[in-house]
Amino acid sequence: MSRNLKVTIEYDGTDYCGWQIQDNGRTVQGEIQKAIEKLTEEKITVCGSSRTDAGVHAKGFVFNFITDTTIPCEKFPLALNAFLPTDICALSCAEVSDTFHARYDAKIKTYSYLFYPSSTPSALLQDRAWHIKTAMYDGKTFDFYKEKSDKMNEAAKYFIGTHDFTAFRAIGSTVTTTERTIYSARTEVISDNYISGKTLFRYTVSGNGFLYNMVRIMAGTLSEIMLGKREPESILDAIESKQRKKAGMTAPASGLYLESVTY
Amino acid sequence: MSRNLKVTIEYDGTDYCGWQIQDNGRTVQGEIQKAIEKLTEEKITVCGSSRTDAGVHAKGFVFNFITDTTIPCEKFPLALNAFLPTDICALSCAEVSDTFHARYDAKIKTYSYLFYPSSTPSALLQDRAWHIKTAMYDGKTFDFYKEKSDKMNEAAKYFIGTHDFTAFRAIGSTVTTTERTIYSARTEVISDNYISGKTLFRYTVSGNGFLYNMVRIMAGTLSEIMLGKREPESILDAIESKQRKKAGMTAPASGLYLESVTY
Repeated sequence: MSRNLKVTIEYDGTDYCGWQIQDNGRTVQGEIQKAIEKLTEEKITVCGSSRTDAGVHAKGFVFNFITDTTIPCEKFPLALNAFLPTDICALSCAEVSDTFHARYDAKIKTYSYLFYPSSTPSALLQDRAWHIKTAMYDGKTFDFYKEKSDKMNEAAKYFIGTHDFTAFRAIGSTVTTTERTIYSARTEVISDNYISGKTLFRYTVSGNGFLYNMVRIMAGTLSEIMLGKREPESILDAIESKQRKKAGMTAPASGLYLESVTY
Repeated sequence: MSRNLKVTIEYDGTDYCGWQIQDNGRTVQGEIQKAIEKLTEEKITVCGSSRTDAGVHAKGFVFNFITDTTIPCEKFPLALNAFLPTDICALSCAEVSDTFHARYDAKIKTYSYLFYPSSTPSALLQDRAWHIKTAMYDGKTFDFYKEKSDKMNEAAKYFIGTHDFTAFRAIGSTVTTTERTIYSARTEVISDNYISGKTLFRYTVSGNGFLYNMVRIMAGTLSEIMLGKREPESILDAIESKQRKKAGMTAPASGLYLESVTY
């Protein structure tokens, strides 16, 4: 009897042209399907929770697929990992109802964005966090970072609620509605004492969905507040304007992480 | 007038055949020399503090070189970074006395080693930490990790002091003396809430010098304590035996970081 399996995966998006399968270029979906086909000897198509862009990472991406395999759920991640490249890992697997759909049934998505201001980049954070080249923060204390983070938090609060986020989506992208509900949005200071030695900012945002490039434009706008180039209230103005040019720059893909998807 | 410059760099060792220049294969020293030669238009040789192996990372590697360049020290890192590949970054630069030698004058070297026990690997920690495949730690609390870390700390204490570390060096390596002094050695639990979501152990050790593979053999031995395969007292036995086979396995290079060098 066919089963509908929901699988949670982590991936390093650096060497992928994003999630969605395409004719040219290595994709996460493509690698996943190849691995499942090798493992189960079935021809399958997986359905992903989101279409992450090239270079974007995921810690809790969810996909589902219909299968006749009899591999028990608790053994599935390890079995699949044996066929996956090392920059994609299956973390867990559960059997779900026939009607479960990883994309349509997603209730809350949480993304995080990592960036750090420094005159020098970190080789060890390459492809993991956005380096904002500035000497402003060199040698500064945690309190200095905290003060800036408080200001970014003041700004991020304007994202919370149901708004038309037209100003925070890539120009040219089309969707039926540009209204989205943001449940939480905050920044924090992270003293990375184990990989790089840098002090970073992390922006974490949860919502019922996101427009194209929305989190990256939010992060780019917050970086401008960090640098003193704009004030927190300008976020409200940008949202109300519905004009892309009133929001900030689009932050690079490599600092973005899909944290989790809730159903 | 010639100056002796001391430069501190960070690098991701993944794509390198180690520090030391060689005819075949990309090395950190090779890339550094190429970049300095492009920047200063001089033919130079740099002298590194350590000969890190292929795959080993560094956060505070030090080298020095004699140069006629007039680039001010405070501008040197940024200028050099313009010519370096993105997996090597110059962090700082200082002018030192003519006689300063990055290797011979090193007083204390500090290394760290990252490892994590989990049934599933982390794609985002690939080449950054050693994945020890075990289900023992799945779903366990911080306290559970802490208890194991305490046991590893009990073991690590036996490393502290001046000992003949023959049991903790790669067989076949030759040095004039196998005695080294370890000033501190400890493990701690790190809840990585920003890159991978995994809980890791970090082993940090400072000493006046290390034998070939010494830190990796120490980390491998501590991992066996973590897994309950050996007791803390066995470290003392291993040291006293002076037999490589009494110590544990050699942990992989990719979890090892040269943290800092003190002069």
